[in-house]
Amino acid sequence: MTVQNQETADWLQSVRWNSLEDRLDLLDQRLLPDEILYLELTTSEQVWDAIKQLAVRGAPAIGIAAAFGVYLGIRGVNGSREELLAEAGRQCDYLATSRPTAVNLFWALDRMRARAEALLGPDSDTSVETAKELLLDEARAIQAEDEETCRLIGEHALELFQDGMGVLTHCNAGGLATARYGTALAPMYLAQEKGIALKVFADETRPVLQGARLTAFELQQAGVDVTLICDNMAGAVMAKGWVQAVIVGTDRVAANGDVANKIGTYSVAVLAKAHGIPFYVACPMSTIDLGTPTGADIPIEERHEDEITQGFGKRTAPAGVKVYNPAFDVTPNEYVTAIITEKGVIRAPYAENLKKLFE
Amino acid sequence: MTVQNQETADWLQSVRWNSLEDRLDLLDQRLLPDEILYLELTTSEQVWDAIKQLAVRGAPAIGIAAAFGVYLGIRGVNGSREELLAEAGRQCDYLATSRPTAVNLFWALDRMRARAEALLGPDSDTSVETAKELLLDEARAIQAEDEETCRLIGEHALELFQDGMGVLTHCNAGGLATARYGTALAPMYLAQEKGIALKVFADETRPVLQGARLTAFELQQAGVDVTLICDNMAGAVMAKGWVQAVIVGTDRVAANGDVANKIGTYSVAVLAKAHGIPFYVACPMSTIDLGTPTGADIPIEERHEDEITQGFGKRTAPAGVKVYNPAFDVTPNEYVTAIITEKGVIRAPYAENLKKLFE
Repeated sequence: MTVQNQETADWLQSVRWNSLEDRLDLLDQRLLPDEILYLELTTSEQVWDAIKQLAVRGAPAIGIAAAFGVYLGIRGVNGSREELLAEAGRQCDYLATSRPTAVNLFWALDRMRARAEALLGPDSDTSVETAKELLLDEARAIQAEDEETCRLIGEHALELFQDGMGVLTHCNAGGLATARYGTALAPMYLAQEKGIALKVFADETRPVLQGARLTAFELQQAGVDVTLICDNMAGAVMAKGWVQAVIVGTDRVAANGDVANKIGTYSVAVLAKAHGIPFYVACPMSTIDLGTPTGADIPIEERHEDEITQGFGKRTAPAGVKVYNPAFDVTPNEYVTAIITEKGVIRAPYAENLKKLFE
Repeated sequence: MTVQNQETADWLQSVRWNSLEDRLDLLDQRLLPDEILYLELTTSEQVWDAIKQLAVRGAPAIGIAAAFGVYLGIRGVNGSREELLAEAGRQCDYLATSRPTAVNLFWALDRMRARAEALLGPDSDTSVETAKELLLDEARAIQAEDEETCRLIGEHALELFQDGMGVLTHCNAGGLATARYGTALAPMYLAQEKGIALKVFADETRPVLQGARLTAFELQQAGVDVTLICDNMAGAVMAKGWVQAVIVGTDRVAANGDVANKIGTYSVAVLAKAHGIPFYVACPMSTIDLGTPTGADIPIEERHEDEITQGFGKRTAPAGVKVYNPAFDVTPNEYVTAIITEKGVIRAPYAENLKKLFE
């Protein structure tokens, strides 16, 4: 394993501002788990490429990278305040095209744009050089706030766990996808900080193996006790009494508490219920969409058959065979024991309690 | 795809006696699904190697191959009846060492040995040349009886299915593992012969992917409507209402009806029950072991971690990560809707009804 320029943090950061070199160091997640390599990015074009080429993944991590990308794109401007503001707008427009479906990306860029307008608009007299510094600070703030959100999710989740418990997770809702800690993995990291021993089971998560490649990897790196299993072993592990809680992330929570997440999450939820094991969903408030009434209103993307038939660089199924490859599934609210956000633990009735959360 | 010497049968035989060439043609299952290649075996040493090297798999198929191997081993003997009998015994002892844990292998070789003793013992006067022919016939009979057993299992299972049903299976209990038809797949083949349309969902069956490599392959070859899914999609497919029955094979049925089968079977059984879908187990009587009281008495082999961490010639998990890789799991009898044998469909109470079956 090659480890390059691993320097500042004592945990594995996916997005890292390098203030000594005034550049963005971005963990190339495509190379995991074989190699830990940080891309050294000095231009917004490089950031755009890194997002497009999936070197960085995870909605919060993409947003943070793009925010730093705006700074890299404007720091060379040597003109008027108006010129800097115009360039900041252009950089935001440009970086938004790197992944047109990433809601967090737009959110982060809108925030950078609003900050630039506040600093450089007619109601302000901030200098060009100061404005540049404050835009870099804004990107740092986005990152710091994401870390704090994840830490709070982890604190609330950890209240539900006890020392010695077995916890099963599916896919990767971990530190690599966020500034730090992740969502579903946040209680594992906080438990470790507090000396609470959890035994984590990571589903490998076919077809793309985020559990094997990312969750098992980042927990192992952090020294958390993690055991990798194939998805179809979850039931057997529960039957052995090794699992006392399941916790997963989510792509979207509907207003009624139905949860869309990586394919296979629903099977895990049903298995958990059958074994009397609580099933928790961890997510920031921004993932809860009161505009989506139920899980049935969430469109499920179907992905390419090659992910199943030759997902490992080798054909593992006959050519031309029919394949069903949905990217997500929906877990109905009756399987969800609680939803854990930065504001606390929400339980059924979800329609009522999720609404209250935003009041 | 290379197809070589595909000649006699109109279905894909795993073990095929070639009477024109007086040799055993053995489908090399290691090359599936990329290539259909028959090994042309003319000596018992070649049969021993093919079993050892996993070119042939599936307990019945291994037994049949070994029986033909005995004939290949003795056909060159040009001596007395006593010399032929001694050589037949040596060949049986030798071939039994090819896979020391395969119960069906020993069963088939014991049967060949008994036939040789009957033909060549002091109470018989069969000639050497006739005895050789009759030993070849015995191997053919073992194969034909296995085909008949599987066909009967399929007939009984098919009574439980209706035209248009979706049927989910896990692992490979198919024609490739037997003389023809398989056990869990037998009703699919018979349905096709009778013009009954079933829609089959094949779990890929991590870690070794027997569902993707073998089940999807052999059903596709036969023109059966098959859709390949990852193991973790079984719940989502059931929730969509696409599955009306689950049918699997088994390695051993305990006296109380607990069922040991490929890892992941238990998860499928729990998911089926949660969706109100019947869960069937198809097997020959020889798989039911009244000497094993319950599933807890069946030892579960753990296999090498590489199957999970680098099962496709490529590392997909971090080096050194802990792995749990059981080969089988046990599905308790309360999840089993029925056990289907060549003698008919057995339902609970299993302790009572399985015992009756052998009376």
